[in-house]
Formats: sequence, structure tokens, C-alpha cells
Amino acid sequence: MAPILLNCLGNDPIKQQVQVKNPYLDTMEEDILYHFSLSTKTHNLPEMFGEIKFVCVGGSANRMKAFAQFIHQELELPGSAEQISDICEGTDRYCMYKVGPVLSISHGMGVPSISIMMHELIKLLHHAQCKDVVLFRLGTSGGVGLTPGTVVVTDRAVDYAFRPHFEQVVLGKVITRSTELDEGVAAELLQCSAELQNFPTVIGNTMCTHDFYEGQGRLDGALCSFSPEDKLEYLRKAYEAGVRNIEMESTVFAAMSRVCGVKAAVVCVTLLNRFEGDQITSAHDVLVEYQQRPQVLVSHFIKKRLGLVV
Amino acid sequence: MAPILLNCLGNDPIKQQVQVKNPYLDTMEEDILYHFSLSTKTHNLPEMFGEIKFVCVGGSANRMKAFAQFIHQELELPGSAEQISDICEGTDRYCMYKVGPVLSISHGMGVPSISIMMHELIKLLHHAQCKDVVLFRLGTSGGVGLTPGTVVVTDRAVDYAFRPHFEQVVLGKVITRSTELDEGVAAELLQCSAELQNFPTVIGNTMCTHDFYEGQGRLDGALCSFSPEDKLEYLRKAYEAGVRNIEMESTVFAAMSRVCGVKAAVVCVTLLNRFEGDQITSAHDVLVEYQQRPQVLVSHFIKKRLGLVV
Repeated sequence: MAPILLNCLGNDPIKQQVQVKNPYLDTMEEDILYHFSLSTKTHNLPEMFGEIKFVCVGGSANRMKAFAQFIHQELELPGSAEQISDICEGTDRYCMYKVGPVLSISHGMGVPSISIMMHELIKLLHHAQCKDVVLFRLGTSGGVGLTPGTVVVTDRAVDYAFRPHFEQVVLGKVITRSTELDEGVAAELLQCSAELQNFPTVIGNTMCTHDFYEGQGRLDGALCSFSPEDKLEYLRKAYEAGVRNIEMESTVFAAMSRVCGVKAAVVCVTLLNRFEGDQITSAHDVLVEYQQRPQVLVSHFIKKRLGLVV
Repeated sequence: MAPILLNCLGNDPIKQQVQVKNPYLDTMEEDILYHFSLSTKTHNLPEMFGEIKFVCVGGSANRMKAFAQFIHQELELPGSAEQISDICEGTDRYCMYKVGPVLSISHGMGVPSISIMMHELIKLLHHAQCKDVVLFRLGTSGGVGLTPGTVVVTDRAVDYAFRPHFEQVVLGKVITRSTELDEGVAAELLQCSAELQNFPTVIGNTMCTHDFYEGQGRLDGALCSFSPEDKLEYLRKAYEAGVRNIEMESTVFAAMSRVCGVKAAVVCVTLLNRFEGDQITSAHDVLVEYQQRPQVLVSHFIKKRLGLVV
């Protein structure tokens, strides 16, 4: 049943399975996905998740619940969008909602938090034997030289020195993984935005930092040892390196997706232009509308893929 | 009104204010603590938080709510512990409860997540003019050579190479901060445990990693490129370096507390012995009881400091 054989036998495109890279996993009697409060023994994962084709993740639990309700309406699925229930209700580490072929999961803030979610998500998709999954991170970010509200589809996720790689510690040694994302999915998302004509969308590099204040050059943290001029110089260098927004999860998200053979995209709205300031001062309702933009874009992508819109 | 002057004028011990290290902060017209959904303009922070003497933080929102209810009962405060409300209800990034002189806050998982919380907490305590605050992280962890359920009070927070420092990126450059914690508070906590005689408590080094799987030598992640022997060798080296538990927040917590002149302690229960396995397999009620142990210990500390127990 190798994918290559399936391809030879018919006209179906190659079905791409999610690849765990761990020789021990399939020898375990039980796999407890601790931070999801799920397990291979207590849950029938193929039955629960086998039909999943799109996984959408984002930092905030409330926002990912709202996205699940939104996509329920957009896909015109039966039942009430309001009555959607959290599959991870046994824990408060993450929340998870299933809406037809779409899974919506929260991942908290920062690389370590999304990294735990990614390990358990990839294992879940593997145990459930999902195929041809597309993975999206829908987030918020600080913009670099963009009008607030602009959506950035990430070309390459880069680190604090603008390098397209992620440093992972394995047993006390630092290894490096590539953070390139799927070009085809990014181009398809840009096309979706052109069709919608609702808000500006650009493709650019996304810088991923490990904190919100000093690492992003903010002057308003509890600690600040640099001048406004130093800050602007760093942001200018970032801009010259193709960085258009700054967030805190994209590098490990890109690196793990790539290693495990999952096509992935990062779609973040910018809440402010960092050349103009550090604090997020827009009115609440403006911020709420901005945060819906990645959801609207990814929803259109999903509907096109499912043949619900032309 | 310098602290040294107060000290000369009376017999009071020196009142230690929380020190922000940012020359720009007090020149700002408004400071929005974005991830707390609080601001110096919309909230009277000295009135709301001026009496705070103890701040307890932990990863899980549910656990920190439970702690707030527990400490309410322990301090025998008026009103119902059940009706406690989330001060950060305007956001789902963190939750925050105030119970008399105690503040209980969740910080999510990993260094970046707790780092954002620490910046905004230190600014909050500064704006509120709090003095002589003691800060505790109450967490869960993997044990190294300890019986599950043992509580570890951290001596030094160390990184993946067992070094007592934290690497912070500032405008693209890596700087190093010390992660030593307050010896006096740790000794006082150990004394509290001896008085309680409820569960084993040790003082040891705590290793802080940036992920739960590869960085901690787990064999059950989506990615695993090492052997069980490699894993055990790494854990043995950690043990020899004085590491008794592994978690994901202690280095930045220790480093930022130290820079800002706040006495701090890390108190984590061990949920398993990593020499014995990787998965957390204990029954739910056993894990719940384990997770209460740091709360019981810190509650005893607070009651002693307030003179409620001898």
C-alpha cells in the first residue's frame, strides 16, 4: 500500500501521509497525547479524525473557537455552530474543535508552546491515518513597514538574525532545521485574496522571536537597554532582509511541518506598524475585525479546495 | 523618598520596590499592558494592586484559579471563594485573580509565554508601587531520579547544557543573564515542608528546556533521532550536574526576577521519574493531588509570613 503503488494503479494524485520521524512510536502499546488529553487506547483516532484535510491553528483559544464557528457557517454544515464542543476539554493547555474536514486548535504563545502542540498534532494525524493535509497558522503580528490590517502570507520564516532556519536542542546539542514553507499554498492564498478584494495581502518574510519586548525591539517592556534609534535601525535591517511582520511561532511551525511532509502556510494580520510605535492602541472592534482577516482568507482557500466556490 | 532614607528614619526594614529597568516607561502618557487587558489610563493600578505582597504564577489557567480559591480559604478571607473573578477577562492570553495580598496568574507554557507575562507583571507591580513582593512559580515538571510526587524547590535554574544562565536576544544580539534564585526564600520553603510533613521536598537544580520532546530527551515525540541509551546518558549527566527536575519556564523567570530586584522561588512537583519513562501515565486523581503540593507548600509560607501560623 505504498503511495507510489496507488499512483501507478489509477489516476489519483499521490496521497501524502503525515510522516512521523520516530522509529519507536509504532511499537508503543499506548500513545498518550498528554496535552490534548487524548490517547490511542481511550479514543478511536482514525474514526474521530480520519476525514481531516485542513488543520488551522492559532494562539488564542477564544479566536480558534470563533474560527470553528465561522468555518461551520461557511461550509454550510448541518447542526448549530454554537453547539460546537472542545475535544480537549480534559485539559486547559489547548482547545480543539472539529468541523467537517477542518480541525481548529489553539497553541498558546511562543515557540515552545506551539512545539508541544505540533508534536501531538503530527502524532494524532499519523495515528488517524490522515492524508493530504494542509496546515495553516492563523495569527496576529507586528507589521514592518505595512499599513495595520495588512495580511502577510509568509514566504520564509526567519530567526532574529534573518536566517531561514530553526535551532532545535536535541539532548544538549543544537541542530538546525530549514523553515521554508510551501510555495504553492502561499501563491494560492495570494490568489484567494485577489479574488476577495477585502483587505491588502502581501507575501513576505516573517521574523519569529522568543519574546515580545526586547527581542522585537520594543521600548515599552519592563527591561529596555537600547535607544529609539537602535530600535529603528534593527527594524530597517529586518525590512531590508525582506521581513514584513514579526510574531513568535512561525519558525518551529515551518520546520516541523517540513520535516513531517505536511504542506503548511503562515497567515498573520499585522496589528500595528512597528516603525510607528510599540503599543497596540487600535480600538477593540478594529482589532477584532483585523483578526478575522486570516480566517476569511483561509476559509476561502478551503471552500475553493472543496469545490464550494469557483 | 528613597528607600535608604526611610531606613534611616525609623526601624522599618528597607522597603524593596520592584525595579523596572527602562528609562522610557515613566515618560509614557499611557502604558497598555496588552496581554493583561489592563492600562494605566483605564485602571487605577495602585488602588487595585497596591497591597499585593505575594505573586504566584503557574502554567495552567484552571490550576491558578483553583489556587486562588484555595488561598482564599486558607487565609480565611470574607466572601465566597467560588465567586472570585478573572481580572484579565478582557483577554484569554492569561488569567489573573486577586485574593487579599496574593495575586494568582497563569502564564501558559514555555519561556516566551512566561516572558511576556513577566514583563507586564513587573510593569504592573511598578505602576501599583508594590513593595517587598515575593514571587513564586508553582509548576509541574519531569523528575530526574526522584519518586513521582516529590516537590523540587529550585536552587539554580539551568539551561540545556546545565549552565545557570539565560540567553536573551536583544535587537539581534544574544546577551546572558544569571538565573540564581533567592537562597533565603528557598530555605524558608524547605523549612515549611519539614513542618507540614505531607510530601517529600528537595532543593535541586531545575533544567529549563524549550520543548517537551526532543529537548528533554523523550522517545515518544513526533520526531526522535536518538536511542534510549543516548537519552539515559543525557539524563545521567543532568543528574550529575545537580538537576533534579525539568520544566520549561524557570530560566527567564529567575533571570527577570533577579534583574528587577524581586525575590523569587520556583516550586515544581515531579509528575514522573524520567529514568523510568517518558509518558505521564498516573491516574487523573493522583496527578491532581500532586499538582496541589506546590500550592500547599506556598500557602504555608504565605500564612507564616502573615503571622497566621507560627
